[in-house]
Amino acid sequence: MNSRKPKVIIVGAGFGGLFAARTFINKPVDVLIIDKNNFHTFTPLLYQVATSALDPSEIAYPVRSIFQRSKNIKTLMGTVTDINVEEKTIHVKTDLQEKTETYDYLLLATGSTPTYYGNDHFKQHALELRTLEDALAIRNHILSRFEQATWEKDEAQRKALTTIVVVGGGPTGIETAGAVYELYNHVLKHEFHHHALTAKVILLELGNKLLTPYPDKLRNSALKQLESLGVEVKFGNSISEVRHDFVTLKDGTMIPSYTLIWATGVKGSPLAELLDVPLERNGRLPIHPSTEVINRPDVFAVGDMTYLEDSTGNPYPMVIPVAQQQGVLAANNILARINGKAPEPFDYHDRGMMATIGRRRAVAWIYNKIQLTGFLAWLAWLGLHLLTLLGFRNRTQVFINWVWNYFTYDRSVRLIIDMEEQAEEKSISYKKEAST
Amino acid sequence: MNSRKPKVIIVGAGFGGLFAARTFINKPVDVLIIDKNNFHTFTPLLYQVATSALDPSEIAYPVRSIFQRSKNIKTLMGTVTDINVEEKTIHVKTDLQEKTETYDYLLLATGSTPTYYGNDHFKQHALELRTLEDALAIRNHILSRFEQATWEKDEAQRKALTTIVVVGGGPTGIETAGAVYELYNHVLKHEFHHHALTAKVILLELGNKLLTPYPDKLRNSALKQLESLGVEVKFGNSISEVRHDFVTLKDGTMIPSYTLIWATGVKGSPLAELLDVPLERNGRLPIHPSTEVINRPDVFAVGDMTYLEDSTGNPYPMVIPVAQQQGVLAANNILARINGKAPEPFDYHDRGMMATIGRRRAVAWIYNKIQLTGFLAWLAWLGLHLLTLLGFRNRTQVFINWVWNYFTYDRSVRLIIDMEEQAEEKSISYKKEAST
Repeated sequence: MNSRKPKVIIVGAGFGGLFAARTFINKPVDVLIIDKNNFHTFTPLLYQVATSALDPSEIAYPVRSIFQRSKNIKTLMGTVTDINVEEKTIHVKTDLQEKTETYDYLLLATGSTPTYYGNDHFKQHALELRTLEDALAIRNHILSRFEQATWEKDEAQRKALTTIVVVGGGPTGIETAGAVYELYNHVLKHEFHHHALTAKVILLELGNKLLTPYPDKLRNSALKQLESLGVEVKFGNSISEVRHDFVTLKDGTMIPSYTLIWATGVKGSPLAELLDVPLERNGRLPIHPSTEVINRPDVFAVGDMTYLEDSTGNPYPMVIPVAQQQGVLAANNILARINGKAPEPFDYHDRGMMATIGRRRAVAWIYNKIQLTGFLAWLAWLGLHLLTLLGFRNRTQVFINWVWNYFTYDRSVRLIIDMEEQAEEKSISYKKEAST
Repeated sequence: MNSRKPKVIIVGAGFGGLFAARTFINKPVDVLIIDKNNFHTFTPLLYQVATSALDPSEIAYPVRSIFQRSKNIKTLMGTVTDINVEEKTIHVKTDLQEKTETYDYLLLATGSTPTYYGNDHFKQHALELRTLEDALAIRNHILSRFEQATWEKDEAQRKALTTIVVVGGGPTGIETAGAVYELYNHVLKHEFHHHALTAKVILLELGNKLLTPYPDKLRNSALKQLESLGVEVKFGNSISEVRHDFVTLKDGTMIPSYTLIWATGVKGSPLAELLDVPLERNGRLPIHPSTEVINRPDVFAVGDMTYLEDSTGNPYPMVIPVAQQQGVLAANNILARINGKAPEPFDYHDRGMMATIGRRRAVAWIYNKIQLTGFLAWLAWLGLHLLTLLGFRNRTQVFINWVWNYFTYDRSVRLIIDMEEQAEEKSISYKKEAST
């Protein structure tokens, strides 16, 4: 009567892990979600936190809260440091202690991480936009550079402090560049008018076109929309050096800038290395169409961290819908295995893609058929994001913020909060305390 | 025609500095506000950020934005490190550089800072609640301790991780203790139900009564309301030791707890020491009734950092209304001096005081005459805070959040965001970069 239910451990509470966990609600399995954060991040809007348009809590939601009413789903905050596929255990570290957990089925969904293509020293001076902490760091950084620019007598220095370089012509790069320019043009310009500061936003695309997978019409439109906004777009130039106060391109161009946002280049999460199997390019973990990891029984993996080819031989893109759909499939396939049934292969339903450029421009390629540009595309983008935002409160509040920002450009979120200083002053982390 | 206008430097963008600056809008003076933050903090609601009920941006507002349309008011972010009253200059430090500014009139309004009454080593393990960073540190700390408690097998340790000690029976202590208990009782309890965690909130008042300046009826009501909520109140016990995992009282009682919030004991801002005049007790700077600093011509000071006696010989309390009214008076008296007129003395309009206890309990002493308790007092508190919150957007949003919280107890702000780790990984601060 009280026989043990199979235990599934999900590592990662991103889109893949969350959609898998949802599929397990009230199913005859015990689920443990492990994530290093206590919240899920709605990553498509990270750039809005970075540009002071939204608060962190408007795009992040506590995982415990999502599964509060699901008796079979538990949550633990920690980092997985080891996986033993023979003994079916994983090792987890928290600030407080280390712990070993046993699983019947393991589902890995830890996403991706930036890569600098061998130029790892770029990382030291580059800002990334992958996590909520990243977004807050960018917000602090940009606002601080503007504050510093007001003190600066040297004109060249002053310009460098308000020049923002965004690397990457994909959706993240385009959205970030557009939002940074609007933050300057509609907010900071007016607040710093005593100091006659001007900002420059440069989007560097290393290839020859923006939004590579999109049709030409949308790509050209994206470029035109970005330029009409005020963003300078530079193509076909790779980066040879990044320092705290300048960027140098391969053709010798030197851009004085204190702010470089790295919105290009991702590789699979390093967690995949713990499985000790050969990885595909970009560190992606090869999986079967069932989302089972090749040669690692009872281990499943989904989303950005995985490598799976579609019927044309191309790998599925590292995008959220793939992660979500693979998450659901992995959960259903684990349930099938438990019931002695055959798993189903992955069948991607591609609903298209879209990218927004500022607050009323966008490009959208719906079902990879209908092409929208400008305001109509922006409305489609807005609708999609409102529909998919997790948690009712967040949705309402983000909507209110958007409407408010739309009509007023007010951005009261532009606070420079330096938690580093705070942490230095006291031993607020458990780790430090415990070692005293 | 273009003769130089007198220059006023205001140090501190708290309630005193802000109300002074507002008084100077469009007056024939050039004003420079210097603050180490780029925002004003609505400190009465800090405890709501600390207990995950409000977002930082809902109680903080960028100073530049407040004075965006005021041509004669400028803002600089930095820390004052020296004051030269002979040469009438101040020295300011930022991340980027150091700078000397000249003034005709100087107005100091940097408030107060916690004191441990000689036990400065308590500070290492105590959490404070004076700044937005403090509030976020408390939020991270409490939520992390709960997460850690879920891993802890030892019952005594588990209890210590979810025991929160608040020191101080004044309004901040009472509001914090009440809010922490509600955070547990209405939110965390349900989210951690798998782990059967229970929380204990202990309010330590070193004296024999809560809310010292209030009439007995309100004090007794506050105690009863706190206890009915679930908070344990301990009187008449001073603290002999604070460590990361316990607090010991003078009578030998040992309270195992990983969380101590220091909500008692403040002294005047250390900036006062730069003036090199004898200070009153608690490091408070003696001023004339005109708010001019004694023996320091053309230097004014207002609010918590100052010492001024009322007609009965008692010093004015370190409360926001005193700071606000002194700020306005200081500004008017500077204008009077410029026009060769005599300054006016300070005349305090005391509108009473109030403290809230959880989400529908409070005590209020309006005009020091009308005594309200319970729900009615809470409504008065709510009305007052909504009326006085700066910035329309904030007011609307805080109100929406409050209504939402009131009916649902939803608290999606309970995110653990560790900016320390972020900062360690990269050289995101200008200082570090500049030194490489």
